[in-house]
Amino acid sequence: MRIKLKIPFKLVIIAIVFAFYSCKKENTTYSENKAQTDVSQEHPKLILTAQGVKDIRAQLGSIPIFDQTLEVVKAEIDAEIEAGIEVPIPKDYSGGYTHVRHKRNWFVLQQAGLLYQILDDEKYAKYVKDMLMQYEALYKTLPLHPKTRSYARGKLFWQCLNDSNWLVYVSQAYDCIYNYLSEEERNKLETNLFKPFADHISIDSPQFYQRVHNHSTWGNTAVGMIGLVMDDQELIDRALYGIKDLKLDATKKDDDGGFLNKDGKAGFLANIEEPFSPDGYYNEGPYYQRYAMYPFLIFAEGLHNVKPELKIFEYKEGVLMKSINALLNLSDADGDFFPLNDGQKGMSYYNNALVTAVDISYHFGDQDPGLLSIAKEQDRVLLDDSGLAVALGIKNGKVEPFTKKSINLSDGPNGTQGGVAILRNEAIELVFKYAAQGSSHGHYDKLSYSLYEDGEEILQDYGLSRYVNIEQKGGGNYLKENKTWAKQTIAHNTVTQNETSHFNGKYEIGSQHHSVLNYFSSDNPNVQVASAKESNAYPGTELLRTMAIIKDEDFEKPYMLDIMKVTSNEANQYDFPFYYFGQVLQTNFDYNSPKILQPLGAKNGYQHLYLEGIGNELDENTKFSWFSNNKFYTLTTITNNKDEILFTRIGANDPEFNLRRDPALLLRTKNEKNKTFVSLIETHGSYSPVTESAKNSNSSIKEIKMVLDTEAYTAIQITNIKGNTKLFITANINASAEAKHTLKINDKNYEWSGSYYFK
Amino acid sequence: MRIKLKIPFKLVIIAIVFAFYSCKKENTTYSENKAQTDVSQEHPKLILTAQGVKDIRAQLGSIPIFDQTLEVVKAEIDAEIEAGIEVPIPKDYSGGYTHVRHKRNWFVLQQAGLLYQILDDEKYAKYVKDMLMQYEALYKTLPLHPKTRSYARGKLFWQCLNDSNWLVYVSQAYDCIYNYLSEEERNKLETNLFKPFADHISIDSPQFYQRVHNHSTWGNTAVGMIGLVMDDQELIDRALYGIKDLKLDATKKDDDGGFLNKDGKAGFLANIEEPFSPDGYYNEGPYYQRYAMYPFLIFAEGLHNVKPELKIFEYKEGVLMKSINALLNLSDADGDFFPLNDGQKGMSYYNNALVTAVDISYHFGDQDPGLLSIAKEQDRVLLDDSGLAVALGIKNGKVEPFTKKSINLSDGPNGTQGGVAILRNEAIELVFKYAAQGSSHGHYDKLSYSLYEDGEEILQDYGLSRYVNIEQKGGGNYLKENKTWAKQTIAHNTVTQNETSHFNGKYEIGSQHHSVLNYFSSDNPNVQVASAKESNAYPGTELLRTMAIIKDEDFEKPYMLDIMKVTSNEANQYDFPFYYFGQVLQTNFDYNSPKILQPLGAKNGYQHLYLEGIGNELDENTKFSWFSNNKFYTLTTITNNKDEILFTRIGANDPEFNLRRDPALLLRTKNEKNKTFVSLIETHGSYSPVTESAKNSNSSIKEIKMVLDTEAYTAIQITNIKGNTKLFITANINASAEAKHTLKINDKNYEWSGSYYFK
Repeated sequence: MRIKLKIPFKLVIIAIVFAFYSCKKENTTYSENKAQTDVSQEHPKLILTAQGVKDIRAQLGSIPIFDQTLEVVKAEIDAEIEAGIEVPIPKDYSGGYTHVRHKRNWFVLQQAGLLYQILDDEKYAKYVKDMLMQYEALYKTLPLHPKTRSYARGKLFWQCLNDSNWLVYVSQAYDCIYNYLSEEERNKLETNLFKPFADHISIDSPQFYQRVHNHSTWGNTAVGMIGLVMDDQELIDRALYGIKDLKLDATKKDDDGGFLNKDGKAGFLANIEEPFSPDGYYNEGPYYQRYAMYPFLIFAEGLHNVKPELKIFEYKEGVLMKSINALLNLSDADGDFFPLNDGQKGMSYYNNALVTAVDISYHFGDQDPGLLSIAKEQDRVLLDDSGLAVALGIKNGKVEPFTKKSINLSDGPNGTQGGVAILRNEAIELVFKYAAQGSSHGHYDKLSYSLYEDGEEILQDYGLSRYVNIEQKGGGNYLKENKTWAKQTIAHNTVTQNETSHFNGKYEIGSQHHSVLNYFSSDNPNVQVASAKESNAYPGTELLRTMAIIKDEDFEKPYMLDIMKVTSNEANQYDFPFYYFGQVLQTNFDYNSPKILQPLGAKNGYQHLYLEGIGNELDENTKFSWFSNNKFYTLTTITNNKDEILFTRIGANDPEFNLRRDPALLLRTKNEKNKTFVSLIETHGSYSPVTESAKNSNSSIKEIKMVLDTEAYTAIQITNIKGNTKLFITANINASAEAKHTLKINDKNYEWSGSYYFK
Repeated sequence: MRIKLKIPFKLVIIAIVFAFYSCKKENTTYSENKAQTDVSQEHPKLILTAQGVKDIRAQLGSIPIFDQTLEVVKAEIDAEIEAGIEVPIPKDYSGGYTHVRHKRNWFVLQQAGLLYQILDDEKYAKYVKDMLMQYEALYKTLPLHPKTRSYARGKLFWQCLNDSNWLVYVSQAYDCIYNYLSEEERNKLETNLFKPFADHISIDSPQFYQRVHNHSTWGNTAVGMIGLVMDDQELIDRALYGIKDLKLDATKKDDDGGFLNKDGKAGFLANIEEPFSPDGYYNEGPYYQRYAMYPFLIFAEGLHNVKPELKIFEYKEGVLMKSINALLNLSDADGDFFPLNDGQKGMSYYNNALVTAVDISYHFGDQDPGLLSIAKEQDRVLLDDSGLAVALGIKNGKVEPFTKKSINLSDGPNGTQGGVAILRNEAIELVFKYAAQGSSHGHYDKLSYSLYEDGEEILQDYGLSRYVNIEQKGGGNYLKENKTWAKQTIAHNTVTQNETSHFNGKYEIGSQHHSVLNYFSSDNPNVQVASAKESNAYPGTELLRTMAIIKDEDFEKPYMLDIMKVTSNEANQYDFPFYYFGQVLQTNFDYNSPKILQPLGAKNGYQHLYLEGIGNELDENTKFSWFSNNKFYTLTTITNNKDEILFTRIGANDPEFNLRRDPALLLRTKNEKNKTFVSLIETHGSYSPVTESAKNSNSSIKEIKMVLDTEAYTAIQITNIKGNTKLFITANINASAEAKHTLKINDKNYEWSGSYYFK
C-alpha cells in the first residue's frame, strides 16, 4: 500500500512544501507553518523529509555551519566504514566494550542514513543495510542480556533503556534507506528485528515501558518511531497511549526507588502530561530533562511530519516548545545545567540533545533569533530540515544573543506544585528550589539553593554521587553514597532539623508534597526576589525562605540576601550549611580545631561529614570570608551567643573515596522553637597571582540587623561600611503584588504595596 | 658638564644609531650591536634614551603592540592625574592602604615619566615633579616606618625591600623629567630625597644591602639607578661593589632564616656572580628569579646605556641573557613558573618583570624571533627602546613560536652544585630537582619532582604556604606552615627516611650540600632521561633517582618511568608519596579506611597529614588510578608484601585553615636497608561530562618488573597489555654518554654505549 501511493504523494508534497516556504513569515507560529504538511508516506519522512533532502542538496556548500557539520560527520562515518562493521554479542555493563560498541553503532547508523540521503551516495545505504542485517542475524538469537542488575533487562544492552535508545536512532536510519531496500529485505528486518525489538522493550518489559518516567519516554518513542517508519498503527498507538489494557502493581519500585506505576498512566502523551509543568519545567530537573528531551522532541518531530493531525507541538498548550526555553534558562553562564536533584555537573547545552532541541525549537517554533546564538556556540546543527533552517538563519545574519533573565518556573502537571526560581543580576545567578519531590531522582532539599557567578559555583549543590559511564566507579551507575549522602538534606544549602532529612528521607512521603510559592518578583531590575514556604518537610515546623539578589551602588557586585524563617511547635536543633569552595580567609569569631577528625553524626548524611572546627560565643553578626578561584567572598549572618559555627568537610565513612572532599560552614542553633536565619553573601574583588595584587578583598557590610520578625513581616536593616543603611521588608503572608501594607518599625511608619519593601 | 655636552653628543648618537640600525643583522649579538652606543650623559639616558625617544616618536601610530600599550598606560595615568596626587604618611604592612598607595605611586611616576618623553606633553612632567616634591617634603620628616616586623625597616614601607622597589622605578621617572627641572629643583630633590633615600637602604641598612640575596639586588639596583641618573660615581660604585670596607657578622640570619652575610660578598656584581649558574639558573628558583629579574635587567640596561665600558651584558659570559632563557624554560605550557622552593603558583611570564626580560632579551640579545611570540602573548611591551624593537619585530612579521624542549640547568656559581632537569615530550613535562639548597627560600626536597600535562599539574609540588599580599592571611607574609609543612621533605615527591626531613630540616647543613648529576640525555626524542644522586640528605644513605619520559607507540601519551634507588648502611623506614589531584578511581589492592582521622605523625610535616586509608598485602605490582580534570591517570609501582600503601590528606594541625586539603598516595617500606622504588605513571584518555563518554580509561601496562638491580645497573622490564615488552637499563655509575656497557640479564647479553639502554 505504501508503494502504491508513492507518485501522487510526491507531487502533493512538492506543491504543498512550495506553498509553505513561499508563505513563511517571521511571525507565523509553528502551528500555522506546519499544519499544511499533512502528507506523505514517502521516505524519508520521519525527521529528514524528502523535501528537506531536496532543499539541503540545493543549498549545500553555501550554508557554513551545516556544511561543516556534514564534513565532520562524513569524516567520522567514512572512518567507521573503513574500519568495518562490528556487532558483538552483548556482554558488558555501561562503559564496557560491547555496550560502547552497540552505542556507537546506533549513532553511526543514524548518521550514515543521513549521509546517504544528503550526499546521494549508495555506499552509506549499503553500509546501513549490511549492519542492520547483522543485527537481524544476531537479534533473533539473543536471550536476555547476561548482566542481571537492571529491573528491566534489554537484549543488546543490560537495560531496556539502552535498547530503546538504540531503536530511536536506528528507526531514523531505517527510514533513510527504506526505499533503498527491497520489500523482501524490509520484511526480513521488520519481522526479525524491529517488531520483536519493539515488543521486547514494551510488551515484554511493562515495568519499564508502562509508566511516567524518562525511561518510558525513551521506550515509547522507540516503539513510536519504528511504528511511524513501518506505518504500523498498533505500534504507534502503543507508543502514544501505552500497552493496551495493561495495569501494573502500583506499589512496586524501580532500581532508583521510584514507583513503577503509581497511578496507571502510560504512553508518550501521558509522559508529556505528567512531568512537564505548564511552564515547561520537567519534574526531575534539567539533567534528566536534557536526557529525556531527545526522545520527546525527535518523536514529536516524527509525529508532526507523519501524523500532523495530532498537532503534537500544540499538545498541552505547546509545552514541548516551552520546555526547551525552560531548559535553556536552567543553565549557568557557561551553558552548564544547574545540578538540581540527581544531576551530573558539567552537562550543558553543548550536549547533542540540546542541538536537537535548539534546532527543532527554532524550526518548528517561532524562529527566535536568540536560539541562533546558542546554535553558533554549539557549532553544529542537525543534518535535517531543522538544521537547515538554523544554518540559513545564521547565514542570513539573524543571530541575536540569548539573554537569560530572572525566571520563575512552576512545577507539577498543572503548575501548582511549587517550582524553581532563578534570580539573575549581572554575573550573579541564584537557583532557588521550592519544587515537588522530582520523581525518583529527587533530593530531600526543600527550599535549597545554589549560587553562581559567571558560571562558577560560589555555594554549590553537590549534585549526584555517580561517575556516569566511568566503569571503574560502580560500573558507571549510581553509587550508594547517592542515597546516603547526595539525596540527604544536610548535603544541601537548606535547614536540617534534628539531624533528620526532610520527610525522613522517605520517597513515599516526599512525593506527596511540594513547597508553595509565597511570591516572585523580578520587576525591579535591582531587586530580584523569590519567596516560598514548606510546611510538610518536618510536621509541626514551617519553613519560609525569602531570597533576594540586590544590586546596590555602594557594592561592587550584586549581593544575596537570604531570610530563612523557621517556626515550630516544639524546640529543635536546626543546622544551616553553606557549601562554599576554597580556602578560609578570615572569621570574626574564635574557633577550635580538633586534633582528630570524627564524623559529625551517624546517619542521614551526617555520617559523611567530618567536623574540622567549632566556634561559639558569636557576636550579633558572624562574619566568614573565603577565597576561591582568585575571588573573595564574605558571609555576614545574624547570630546569637547560643549559636555555634561548625566547619565540616565531606568524606567520612566513604571507604571507596566516592565523595568529593568539599568543605562547608554550618550554622547550628540548638533547642529553639523558632529561628530566623538571616544571611548576606557578598562576592567581591579579585586576586591576580601574576601581579600578586588583591583588590577589594574586604566585606562592604558593616552590620545587618533584624529590626522586625513577626508572622506577617520580617525586616532586615543593612548598613554598609560607608554608613549607608537600607531596609528590606518581606511580607510573610498576604504577599501579592497588589497587597497594600502599613507597618511601624522603631516608631517609623512604612507604607507600600507589593510583596516587599526595599529602600 | 652634562649640559655642555648636549649638542655634539646628540649628533654622535644619531650617527651611531643610524649606523646601528642599518647594519643590524640577524646573527649579530648584543655585544656587537650595542658596543657603539658608548655615549651620552644626555637625559633620558637610563632606560629610555634620547635616541629611543626620537625613534619611538617617528614610529608612533604604526607599531600596533606599542601603540596599544601606550594607549592603556596613557588612560591609566590620565585617570591618576585626574584623581590627584596622594602621598600618605607611611603606616601599613603589605596590602594596607599606605603600602598600596606608595607602591602605586612608584609605578605611576615611572609611567608618567615615559609618557612625558614619548608624547612630549608637559602635563606628565609637571605631575611627576609635583609628586616628587611631595615626596621630598614628606621624606625628610620621616622616622623609620612604624611597623617593626622587618629585619630592615624602610621609611616609606615597612621593609627596605619596598623602599628599594620605589627608588628603582622612581629613578627612571626622575631621568625622564631631568631636563624639565631647574638645577635648583634637582638639587632639592637629590639632597633631601634621593641621596638620603639611597643612603638609608644601603649605609643605614647593611644587613639588607650588604649581601648576596634578591633583597640586596633590589637595594643595589636602587642605589645604582639613582646614581646613574645623578651621575654620582660613589653611589654607582656602592651599587656595583657594595658598601666600601664594611664587614658584617657572618652568623646572623634574616626573617626567612637565611644567613645575612655568610661570606662577605656584596654588591650588584657579586649578586650576579653568586646566585646564577653559568646556565642562568637562579639558586632560589624561578619564582624568586622572576622577582629579582627586574632589578638585574633594568640596572644592566641602565649600565649598558650609561656605562657601556662595563660590558655588563657580557659579564660572566653573558649570564644575564642566559638567565632569561632559563627562566622562560622553567615555565609550564601556560607560561606558569614551576613552583620550586618557595614559589607561589600562578606566577607566570605574563608578569611585568617578564615583559621587561623578554623585551630586553630581544633588543640587547640576538633578536630571537621566539621571544616575539611570548611578547605577543604578553600583549604589551616596554615603552622604551627595547619595547620599540619588539614592536617592530612583530610588525615586520618576524614572530616564531618559542619552543620549549628538554633542558638541563646546572646550579651553583660555577655550575657544579647539581641542577634542575626538565624533561618534555608532547604535552608532558617533568621537572626534576637535584639542585643545591636554594638559599633561604629552599625546600628540603632532594631529588623531588613534579609532573605536568598541558600546563596542568598531574603530580604537584606544594609550593609555598603563603597568600602573597592577601592581608587577611598573616598580613600576606609567609605563614608558619611554610616551615612546618611546605619546606619539609614529606611535602614533596621524594623519599623521606624515618619520618625526618633531609638534613634534619637544618638550613646550616642543607646549604653545605647539593645533589650530583649522574647523567642527562635528551638526544633520543622518544626517551628523555635525567639521573642524579644525593649522598648527604641522610648520612649513611644514598639516593639515586633516574627519571624518564618515554614515548612508546603502544601508548596514547608519553609515560613517566621513575627509578629511585635507596641504599643505606642500616635499616630504615622509607616513605614515598605521590601528590596527585582529584578522585580515587581504582586500586588493585584492598585497604581499610579509619572511622576517625588522625595525624600521621607528630613532626617534620607528618603532623599535617591525615591518614585516610591503609592498604597492605600488596601484589608485585600495585596499581592505583585516579581521575582529575576529566582525565585518567594510572600509577603502576613495584611492591612486595611487606610494603604498605597509605592514603593521606593535608590539613591536620592546621587550625587556621592555611593549608590546601590535597591528597597523596604514600608507599611505605619499613625496616629495610635498601629499596628501589620503581614507578610508572601513565596519563591516558579523557572524559566528557557533556557526552558522558569515557575514552581509554584503563591502564595500558600489564606489568613492570625489576629484572636486575646492582650497584652498577638497574633494569626494568615493561610489558604492556598487548604483550609487547620493553627493557630500560640505567647505568647507576659510569654513566657517561661514551661509556660502553656489556651486561647479562636472564642469560641474555646486552651491549650498548651511553647512559641507558631502552629497547
